[in-house]
Amino acid sequence: MKEQIDQWLQALTLEEKASLCAGENMWMTKGIDRLNLPPIHMYDGTNGIRKTNSDEEMGITTENMPATCYPTGSAIGSSWNTELLREIGVALGVEGRSMGVELLLGPGINMKRTPLGGRNFEYYSEDPCLSGELGAAFIQGLQSQGVGASVKHFACNNQENEKMVTSSEVDERTLREIYLSAFERIIKKADPWTVMCSYNLLNGTYASENEHLLNDILREEWGYDGVVLSDWTAVNDRIRGLKAGLDIEMPGPAHYNTKAIVEAVRQGSVSEEQLNRSVRRILELVYKTTRAQAENTASGIDYHALARKAAAESIVLLKNDNSILPIDPNRTRSIAVIGRFAKKPRIQGAGSAEVTPTRVDTPWEEMRDVAGSTVDFRYAEGYPQDDRIDDSLIEESVKLAANSELALLFVGQPEYAESEMHDLKGIELPEQQVKLIQAIAAVQPRCVVVTSSGTALVMRPWIEHVPGVVHAWLSGQGAGRAIAEILFGRINPSGKLSETFPVKLSDNPAHMRILGENGKLYYREGLFIGYRYYDRKEMAPQFPFGHGLSYTSFPYSGLKVEQRGRGARVSFSLENTGAMAGKEVIQLYVHDEECKWVRPVNELKAFAKVELQPGEKKEIVLELEERDFAYYNTKDNRWTAESGYFQIAVGSSSRDIRIRERLYLDFGQEETAFHKFSLLNDWMADPKARKVLESTLEEMNRHVTEKVELDDVFLGFWGDFPTIKIFQMFGQQWLYEKSPDQLIQEMIERVEQERHS
Amino acid sequence: MKEQIDQWLQALTLEEKASLCAGENMWMTKGIDRLNLPPIHMYDGTNGIRKTNSDEEMGITTENMPATCYPTGSAIGSSWNTELLREIGVALGVEGRSMGVELLLGPGINMKRTPLGGRNFEYYSEDPCLSGELGAAFIQGLQSQGVGASVKHFACNNQENEKMVTSSEVDERTLREIYLSAFERIIKKADPWTVMCSYNLLNGTYASENEHLLNDILREEWGYDGVVLSDWTAVNDRIRGLKAGLDIEMPGPAHYNTKAIVEAVRQGSVSEEQLNRSVRRILELVYKTTRAQAENTASGIDYHALARKAAAESIVLLKNDNSILPIDPNRTRSIAVIGRFAKKPRIQGAGSAEVTPTRVDTPWEEMRDVAGSTVDFRYAEGYPQDDRIDDSLIEESVKLAANSELALLFVGQPEYAESEMHDLKGIELPEQQVKLIQAIAAVQPRCVVVTSSGTALVMRPWIEHVPGVVHAWLSGQGAGRAIAEILFGRINPSGKLSETFPVKLSDNPAHMRILGENGKLYYREGLFIGYRYYDRKEMAPQFPFGHGLSYTSFPYSGLKVEQRGRGARVSFSLENTGAMAGKEVIQLYVHDEECKWVRPVNELKAFAKVELQPGEKKEIVLELEERDFAYYNTKDNRWTAESGYFQIAVGSSSRDIRIRERLYLDFGQEETAFHKFSLLNDWMADPKARKVLESTLEEMNRHVTEKVELDDVFLGFWGDFPTIKIFQMFGQQWLYEKSPDQLIQEMIERVEQERHS
Repeated sequence: MKEQIDQWLQALTLEEKASLCAGENMWMTKGIDRLNLPPIHMYDGTNGIRKTNSDEEMGITTENMPATCYPTGSAIGSSWNTELLREIGVALGVEGRSMGVELLLGPGINMKRTPLGGRNFEYYSEDPCLSGELGAAFIQGLQSQGVGASVKHFACNNQENEKMVTSSEVDERTLREIYLSAFERIIKKADPWTVMCSYNLLNGTYASENEHLLNDILREEWGYDGVVLSDWTAVNDRIRGLKAGLDIEMPGPAHYNTKAIVEAVRQGSVSEEQLNRSVRRILELVYKTTRAQAENTASGIDYHALARKAAAESIVLLKNDNSILPIDPNRTRSIAVIGRFAKKPRIQGAGSAEVTPTRVDTPWEEMRDVAGSTVDFRYAEGYPQDDRIDDSLIEESVKLAANSELALLFVGQPEYAESEMHDLKGIELPEQQVKLIQAIAAVQPRCVVVTSSGTALVMRPWIEHVPGVVHAWLSGQGAGRAIAEILFGRINPSGKLSETFPVKLSDNPAHMRILGENGKLYYREGLFIGYRYYDRKEMAPQFPFGHGLSYTSFPYSGLKVEQRGRGARVSFSLENTGAMAGKEVIQLYVHDEECKWVRPVNELKAFAKVELQPGEKKEIVLELEERDFAYYNTKDNRWTAESGYFQIAVGSSSRDIRIRERLYLDFGQEETAFHKFSLLNDWMADPKARKVLESTLEEMNRHVTEKVELDDVFLGFWGDFPTIKIFQMFGQQWLYEKSPDQLIQEMIERVEQERHS
Repeated sequence: MKEQIDQWLQALTLEEKASLCAGENMWMTKGIDRLNLPPIHMYDGTNGIRKTNSDEEMGITTENMPATCYPTGSAIGSSWNTELLREIGVALGVEGRSMGVELLLGPGINMKRTPLGGRNFEYYSEDPCLSGELGAAFIQGLQSQGVGASVKHFACNNQENEKMVTSSEVDERTLREIYLSAFERIIKKADPWTVMCSYNLLNGTYASENEHLLNDILREEWGYDGVVLSDWTAVNDRIRGLKAGLDIEMPGPAHYNTKAIVEAVRQGSVSEEQLNRSVRRILELVYKTTRAQAENTASGIDYHALARKAAAESIVLLKNDNSILPIDPNRTRSIAVIGRFAKKPRIQGAGSAEVTPTRVDTPWEEMRDVAGSTVDFRYAEGYPQDDRIDDSLIEESVKLAANSELALLFVGQPEYAESEMHDLKGIELPEQQVKLIQAIAAVQPRCVVVTSSGTALVMRPWIEHVPGVVHAWLSGQGAGRAIAEILFGRINPSGKLSETFPVKLSDNPAHMRILGENGKLYYREGLFIGYRYYDRKEMAPQFPFGHGLSYTSFPYSGLKVEQRGRGARVSFSLENTGAMAGKEVIQLYVHDEECKWVRPVNELKAFAKVELQPGEKKEIVLELEERDFAYYNTKDNRWTAESGYFQIAVGSSSRDIRIRERLYLDFGQEETAFHKFSLLNDWMADPKARKVLESTLEEMNRHVTEKVELDDVFLGFWGDFPTIKIFQMFGQQWLYEKSPDQLIQEMIERVEQERHS
C-alpha cells in the first residue's frame, strides 16, 4: 500500500492535494483521473443506508433509495448484544457495497446527556462502556466487508438546539470519563476508517478546528491514523481545521477553501508537510476502501429477517404485573387493538438518518399472523395523527376495549417530535394519548401498552393503571413482527434499557439547561449523567438503566473475584429456572469504596448477553483491567487507579444488583509531595515531615505569646489549615525578616533531605 | 476629614505607609505615635463580640471576654425582620464601644450553597435578597454607633473543606446573581466601613489578590471606597494583593511584607500612588472610627432582653398538627422533658464566631418559670454528650414519656459537628437521637420535638411520627426563654426558614461535590441553589424556604400590580383572623414567564414582617425596581430586563403562594444584530434581512441542482441552521471563488444599508 500512496503523493500537484481536502460534491470525495485515483462514495446511515437519488442532493425531506431499516441507535443499544451489532455491521457492509457505498456515515455514539436531545434516537446509550462495545462490534462487522465506518459526532454534540453556535463547556475529567470514553474504546478496538467531527464548539473552539480534541487526544494519545472528516458544513476556518487535523471537508467542492489552502502553503502559514499528512491519510482511505471491496466474503443475508431479529432483541418488557404477558391466543379470544401506531408504526426518527425502508411490518398484521385465527382482533384509531384532543376517538376505543377480553394500546412520541435539528419539547406522551390510556385502563384491567419513541418516556400519569408495558423504541422495519412475537410469547423479551427512564422530565441531570446561553452550554452535571446521576442523588427513576423483564427468571450465584495482575477476574453462575429459553443481560458495575476524587456510585465496566435453555446453568467469567478501576486524574493528566477496596456488583439492572463482593486492589502508593500550601494534617501524617514541623514549632514557641501545641484540640480545629498559614497566624511575633514563604520552603527542603539521607 | 487625611499622608514616610498595610498584631491596626495617628481595635463577631484576653492571641479554643450572645446568622436570618437586625446592630455598637471595639468583624453573608458548610450557622440565608436586606440593616445599626462593620467573606467561600487551597469556579452570571448580589446590596445600602476578603481562590485567583473581584467589581462598578482587609492569613502574595486593592493584611505585623512593599515601590513594580490609595482608605477608616465614637447616642439597652426577643423572632414552628402547640399549662399537668439540650442548650457554633456569653437561659428553667407551678416537669437525659448508642437512656426516657401527659424532646446537631474549619458530615440527627424520638413517639402521641442546629436538618426518619416540631436554630443566650414562651403560647412564633430543609441530604443542589478536586470546586448548580433548585427540579423539600407556622392565620387578598416607570408597585391586604396577635412574613417572588436566558422559577424580591392584632387588617405596599426583573447578561456584561409578562407571586413561603398576578412590563426592544452565524429563523424574522436572504437564494437557485424553497417543510427542518451554512450545504455548485464568509458579510452589509436608507 505504502508504495502506491507514496507514488500518488509525489505525483499530486499542490492544487490537487488541496482539492482532495474537500468532497467532490455532497457525497463523494474527489478523484484524480490522470492518476487513476478514484473517488469514494459515502452515504448517511446509522440504522440503515440513506443513499440519495443524486450525489448533488442533501435529500433530507425526499424519498431516497430503498434500503433495510434496522432498529435505531437507542433501540439496538437496548439489545446489549455485541454479536448482533457485528452481524448488522456485516449486513450493512454487504448491502452497502451492492448500492455503491464505500463509507457509511455512522455509527453515532454520543452520550445521552438529556432525554430531550433531538438525535438521541440515533445514539446507543447514556453509558460509554455500553456504547463503546456496541459501536466497536458494529464497526468490526461493517469494515470486515470493505465498507468504512465514520464514528460520529466527535465530540460533545449532545443537543440539537443551536448546536452550530454553541460551545459545549466540559471539564477535562468529564470529557475523558464520559464523552470521549466510548470513542476511545472504539478507536482502540475497531480502528474505524474515519471519524466525523461535530458541529459544535468544545470549550470555545469548533470541534472541526480543535487541536486538543483532534490532535492531542485523538491522534497523539490514542494513536489514531485514519481520516477525520467534517460533519456537513461543520467547517468554519479551513486553515485552522487543517492544522488541527481535519482531513476532509464535506460537502465539497468548497473551491474557495482549496484556494485558501494553496495560498496558505505558498505563504508558509501551513507547511506542505502538514498538508501532506492529511493527504496521505485520505489516500490511504481511498486505497483501503477501493481495494478492500474485492476481498469481502459475506453473502446470502436475509436483511428483513435480520431486521426482525434485531428488533426482537431491542424491545424491552418494562412491566408485567401478574404475568399479563405473554398472551395465550387459546385463552384470550378477543383483543382490542387501539392506536394508530398499530397500523402505521413509527420505526425510526427523522433527519439525515431516515431510511426509505424496503418493507415495513405492522403490528396489526403480524399479530394476526402470529396469534392465528382463534383470536378476534378489533381496531380503533385512538388518537389522530396530529394528536389534537378528540374525545370521540377515545369513546370509540373505550367501547371496543370494554367489549374485548384484553386491550393492546399502541402509543408513543409523535413522528414530528423526534428529528435531527430539533430537541424534543418533552418526554410525556401527548395529552390525547394519556387520556386514552387512562380511559381504557378504567374499563379494561387487562391492558397492555406498547410505547414507541427514540428516547426515554415519562409514564407517571398512567403507568400505575396498567399491568403491562412494552417499550418498542423505534425498532426499524421488522419491529411489527418482533412486537407480535413478544406479545404472544413466541420470543422471550431480552432488551434492557440503554438509558434511564425518569419519573418526570425535571428529574433528569441536565434539566437545568439544554439551551446554551451566550453561546455556552455548561455540562454542569459533570460525570453524573444517566444512572450515575440518579444513583448519586439517591433518586428513584421510573425504570433504571439496564432494566428489562423476561418471561423466565435468571438467578445469579457463586460470585468470586480475585486480583489478576493489575486487574481482576470475576466469575459466577447464571441459571435459567423458568420454562422458556431466554437471554439475560448480565451487568457488572464497579464501586470504589473510597477515593480522594468523587466517583460515581457504580459504573458499568462489563456486560454480556447470555442465552440459556430452561434449566440450563452457565459459568460466566469476566475480566477487568486496571483502567476499569481508574478515574481520569486532571492533576497529573492521566488515568489513575488508587489502591483500596472496590466492590464488584453484578446484576440484572443498575438497580437490581444480585451478587456483590469486595476486594482490595493494590496499585501501589505514592509519597506525599509537599508544597507551599500542604495542610497541617498532611505534615502530621508523614513521619519525616512531622519531625521537621515539630522542631520548627518548638523554635517558634520560644518567641510568641500564644504557643502552638499539636494536641488533639489544636489539630481538631486547625488540621486542615495549610502549615504555612499556621505560621502566618501564630508566628507573627517570630517571623520578622523571614517570610512564611521562605520558612515553608526551608521546611520542605529539610523534608527532602531527610528522605534522601 | 480630608484635611487631616492629607496631612497624615504627607507626613508619613514610605516605610510607615507600607507598615500601615498590615495589622500591629492579631487584632489591631498600627498606630503612628509621632503623628498622633491612633490604631483601630477590631474583634470577631457575627452574633456577638469575641474579644480575646490579649491582642497577641487568636484565642479560638479558650474563654474570652464575656459579651452578649445573640442568635447566630441562620437563626436571625429566619426572623426576616430588618428592624430587629438594626436594633441588634445598635446594641452591638454600644456594647462594642464599651469593650473598646472599633471594628466588628461581621456580618457574614455568604450564600448557603450546601447544608454541610461548616460556617453556615454564621450566615443568614440561601437567598441574596434576604441576606442583603438583613445585613444592610444590621450594618446601619452598628455603624450608627460609631463601630465599623466588616462584611465578609468576599467572596464565594461557601465551604470549609480545604478552603485555602481551593478555587471556587463560578460562572460570571452566577457570581453576579447569587454570590455577589447580597454584597452589592449591602455596599450600596449600608456602606460598610470595611469588607473582608475570603481565604479561597475565585476562578483561579486568590480573593485577596483578585483584581476582577476587588477592583473591577467592588470598587469600579459598585463605587466602594472603604477598606478591604484580609481574612486572617488570607494574604499570599502581598504585592499582587496591594495592586488588586487589598488594603490591610491581618494579622500583622508581617514585617516581611512591609519590606516587600517598600522594595516594590522603590523598584517601581508598585507605584507610590497605588500604595497611597490604600493608605488613604486606611487613614479615612481610622479617622471615621476614632472620631465617630464621640457622636454615638444609644444607651440604656437591656442586652439580655434583646437577645431573648431576637431568639423569639428567629425560632420557627415547623409542624403543629392538631394544634398541639401552644401548651396550655392549665390542661397539661405533667410534661416529660427529654434531652440534654433542655438543660445544656446549644446556643451557637464553634470557631472564631464563638462568644463567651454573659448568661445563658436554659429551656428547663425558663419553662418552669413560664408555665408556673401547675405543671409537673420531669427530666431525662435521653442521649449522652458524645451521642453513642445508649439504650438505657432511651428506656428511661420512654418510661417518663409514657407516664406524662406530653413529651418535649430537645435534640439537635451535636456541638462537635458544627464548627468553622470543618464541614458537616451529615444533616441527620445522631442515631441515638433518632431512636429516642421514634421510641418516645411510639408511646406518647402528644410529642413535640425542639431541634437545635445551625443548618438545615433531615427529619425524614421521624417527622411523620410526631405532631409538633419547633426548630430553635442556635439562637443565642436568650433562646431558652424564647423557646419556653413559644411552647406555652406567651409568644406567637413568627420565624420563617431562611433556608430549605431537604427530605434527604442527597437532594441538595451541591450534593455532587462540596470537596474540591485538583484544587477546583465547580459551582455546577449555577444559579440554582436553595429554593431556586428545588423549584426548578420540581422536587418537594421537607420544608420549603420561607416556611414557618403561626398560632394565628393571615389571609391575603386584593393583590394589585401596576407598572411604575421601569418598575412596579404591588399592593394587597393582610389580615389577622386568629385570636392572638402575631407577625406574618410576607414574601414577594417574581416569575419571568419567558426569557431567552434560563431563569429561576421564582425569585424573592421583597419581603416584610408585619405585626397584626387579632382582627386587624393592613394594606401592604411594596415597590419593585427594574433590577428586580433583570438577570445578569454575560453577553453584554450588564443587568438586563426583557420586556414581557412577569408574575408577581405573594405568599407565606416559597411554596405557599397566596395571591398571584401577571403584568406586562415594557423595557424596550432591541434590533437584531446580524452576525456570521445568525440563524435562518433570525433572518426570516426580520423583514429587511428576509428580503436580502430571499434575493440571495433566488440567485443561488439558478445554479444548483437541489433548489432551496423557504417553505414550511424546509424551515421546519433547517430553521435553526446558521444561514451561512445553508449556503455551504446547498450552494456548493454556485459558490466557487466567493466563500460563504464573503457572501454572508455582503448580505449583512446589505441589511445594514436597508436599515439606514
